Amino acid sequence: MSKPSIPEGTRDFGPSEVRKRQYIFNTVRTIFERYGFQPIETPAMEQLATLTGKYGEEGDRLIFKILNNGLHDQKDAKRIKLEEEWQKMLSKPYSSPTVTERALRYDLTIPFARYVVMNQNDLALPFKRYQMQPVWRADRPQKGRYREFWQCDADVVGSNSLLNEAELICIYQQAFDTLQLPVAIKINSRKILAAIAQLVGAPEKLTDITIALDKLDKIGWEGVSKELVTKNIDQEGIDAIQKITLIAGSTEAQLAEMSQHLSSKLGDEALAGIDELRNTLAYYHQLAEQNWMGAVKIDFTLARGLNYYTGIIAEVVCTHPDVKMGSIGGGGRYDDLTGLFGLKNLSGVGISFGIDRIYDVIEELKLWPPQMHNGAKILLLHTGAALETYVLSWLKTLRQQGIAIELYPDASKVDKQMKFANKRSFEYVLIAGEEEEKQQKISVKNFKTGHQEMMDAAQCIEFLSNI
Amino acid sequence: MSKPSIPEGTRDFGPSEVRKRQYIFNTVRTIFERYGFQPIETPAMEQLATLTGKYGEEGDRLIFKILNNGLHDQKDAKRIKLEEEWQKMLSKPYSSPTVTERALRYDLTIPFARYVVMNQNDLALPFKRYQMQPVWRADRPQKGRYREFWQCDADVVGSNSLLNEAELICIYQQAFDTLQLPVAIKINSRKILAAIAQLVGAPEKLTDITIALDKLDKIGWEGVSKELVTKNIDQEGIDAIQKITLIAGSTEAQLAEMSQHLSSKLGDEALAGIDELRNTLAYYHQLAEQNWMGAVKIDFTLARGLNYYTGIIAEVVCTHPDVKMGSIGGGGRYDDLTGLFGLKNLSGVGISFGIDRIYDVIEELKLWPPQMHNGAKILLLHTGAALETYVLSWLKTLRQQGIAIELYPDASKVDKQMKFANKRSFEYVLIAGEEEEKQQKISVKNFKTGHQEMMDAAQCIEFLSNI
Repeated sequence: MSKPSIPEGTRDFGPSEVRKRQYIFNTVRTIFERYGFQPIETPAMEQLATLTGKYGEEGDRLIFKILNNGLHDQKDAKRIKLEEEWQKMLSKPYSSPTVTERALRYDLTIPFARYVVMNQNDLALPFKRYQMQPVWRADRPQKGRYREFWQCDADVVGSNSLLNEAELICIYQQAFDTLQLPVAIKINSRKILAAIAQLVGAPEKLTDITIALDKLDKIGWEGVSKELVTKNIDQEGIDAIQKITLIAGSTEAQLAEMSQHLSSKLGDEALAGIDELRNTLAYYHQLAEQNWMGAVKIDFTLARGLNYYTGIIAEVVCTHPDVKMGSIGGGGRYDDLTGLFGLKNLSGVGISFGIDRIYDVIEELKLWPPQMHNGAKILLLHTGAALETYVLSWLKTLRQQGIAIELYPDASKVDKQMKFANKRSFEYVLIAGEEEEKQQKISVKNFKTGHQEMMDAAQCIEFLSNI
Repeated sequence: MSKPSIPEGTRDFGPSEVRKRQYIFNTVRTIFERYGFQPIETPAMEQLATLTGKYGEEGDRLIFKILNNGLHDQKDAKRIKLEEEWQKMLSKPYSSPTVTERALRYDLTIPFARYVVMNQNDLALPFKRYQMQPVWRADRPQKGRYREFWQCDADVVGSNSLLNEAELICIYQQAFDTLQLPVAIKINSRKILAAIAQLVGAPEKLTDITIALDKLDKIGWEGVSKELVTKNIDQEGIDAIQKITLIAGSTEAQLAEMSQHLSSKLGDEALAGIDELRNTLAYYHQLAEQNWMGAVKIDFTLARGLNYYTGIIAEVVCTHPDVKMGSIGGGGRYDDLTGLFGLKNLSGVGISFGIDRIYDVIEELKLWPPQMHNGAKILLLHTGAALETYVLSWLKTLRQQGIAIELYPDASKVDKQMKFANKRSFEYVLIAGEEEEKQQKISVKNFKTGHQEMMDAAQCIEFLSNI
């Protein structure tokens, strides 16, 4: 058998990585819970029909499809069908249910919408749920982009109140403050983007405009303006869009300038997005901590790729000068998500934490908390067959006190056991040897300082319980 | 769009189910950690080649394979190859890498072996790992059998000591005691089964014999003996096997009788399995709690289906009279697991918790702990636009104290909000209405008793912090 490997774009997580990831998950989970969000989990496998057509053409191509089982057991008509359907799949973007009925979850939002529709009679609305699970995309793997990665979402469905938007921004604020990451939370309204499209006389090109604006950070204004030309936006329109990208100043000044810009040409109904932003920020300021490491900012160029957003949108970037990383979180309001599954008029708003990127940033900035849980810190040596009964009696005594302790299970040489202790970075090594047995004690060795002390059971329990 | 559904054999977990499952996971995790086991996680997608041939012919058929992407973009030679390979797959049990390179994890043991081989230079041996992740099997779904289900495994690799077996049995004991489930932990040695196969003159039929014996509980001795006939075991052999199934009495008596049975015909080397059992039990008794709800028992008919076991094997069944459920846990030693991936002479021993079945048993016996975490218990009502600022000031004050609290986000009628509180089973409802604002207080209503009291901030914080 050749050397084993794992699929490109997937990862194994060793003990220290799992613990660090758990630290992030637990931090976010605690805050979700404090805001009254409840956990749900959906299957990794969804019906392919549930996912197809929800993520655009590009998205459809990136869905991992699962082959139906029992293919070679088929005869006659079924076999012929399998051959025909395969030909179709090779000829066009098409997935035959005869060949593949199921697929891997592509995000957490569509499964959530499906869940809400399937459980609509039992759910108390508004329903606030959070979900932390892996998703799969057949994207080309690169630094920071994986084919299996975790999403960590909180959504509210069934409430139109902008208080939800404000609470979700507060959740971002508290989570990143707890994680000690300096961030900017950029917000905008899709309604403003729609008004801009109208302003330039191309309301049907809203998607083109948002896709182009989305790239402003990467390709600069020159790149965006070129792309707008290819989308047949005229020069006057492009100038109007550029003007908007240049709006700066305080939040109030930004809102006032945009307000004037839109209303002078479009009238008051174009200002719904401005009102949304103003009200969301007002709520946010009533609820948020004043002193934290980040800031909430209006960014009129913020577009967020996904088509289904209709109201406030948000994106989080790390502002530490050493960090070059795209967004580490994002979200927004979608007015009719469950409509995809036949349940109309249910508004939703949600945010997502980019767990893998947050991990990379904390790793880069070395911000793991020193007291982070690292598993058993204490190793009990195996001092040989003759002393085994004595060693095991200590193991039992200490474990009964709830002390996490690892026994070296083989009667190996002390050297080998010490090497093991070193490689695993235990803090204390316990030795129950001959002398210790004679005195009915145990030696506790601080592995960093080398300091070693003999203790009786009461002393040892007290000492180890306090580390 | 037709009504959405999820694939047969998969499940959504709502908030209360997620919390109950977390209770089981956390209970088991705490005990794993106390014994020095460390967490790892492996990808859901493995290379198909990593899995194929590891679970027997039946297992291979049950692996969920993932279709390669970009199939319809292929031309000429690649397209012809895709057509040919598909024909092959329709004609025989075969999986073409041109069609499918990846598959879903089938269990946690093979990925663990792969992980150890890939990380052999970095791991400190013995390596004790635990892993709690879903696995997927294209089995026919039925009560208690899912296509997506969770495994929860602890394994030690790189140590031959039977202390590992004893510690793993202690883990079972403590976990099921904490979960308040009465269980029997049945143990046996594969070496004894091998000796029995030798005894009946059919050492090459060890697998046939174990597969037949495995069904004793289900089909009785008559069924087993019929199956043995079809496997060409002669009547004398079948009688010898039956004798073994009838061995009873105390552990010591069982061991003595089996000892005599084997050694009289095969000599002392047949007794390795007896020694293993005796030593494991001796270690176990030195380490285990004396008073617990279950028992550890020798069962010479215990076989465990999996081929790779070579030493001690174990299985856990719930002994509560109301519970009809197969094994809720099992494991054993496998002398050469990583050999499958080219790393020889590394012995492993592990156990698995059947999380889904344990969940069902706890549910059936209503053994969820009353203090189990159920999310936010407190709802703050929205008393209308005019009072919003006052309501939000309370929300901020209480959340700052770390109190988990949910705000009803819309200014709906009080009736509607109370219905919501009822459906969600909140314990307390907070009302910051006009009178409360006048007095700068808040009303705390106990939702069960109906008792309502006005409190100032200090009183309210103290009260809510203590519930």
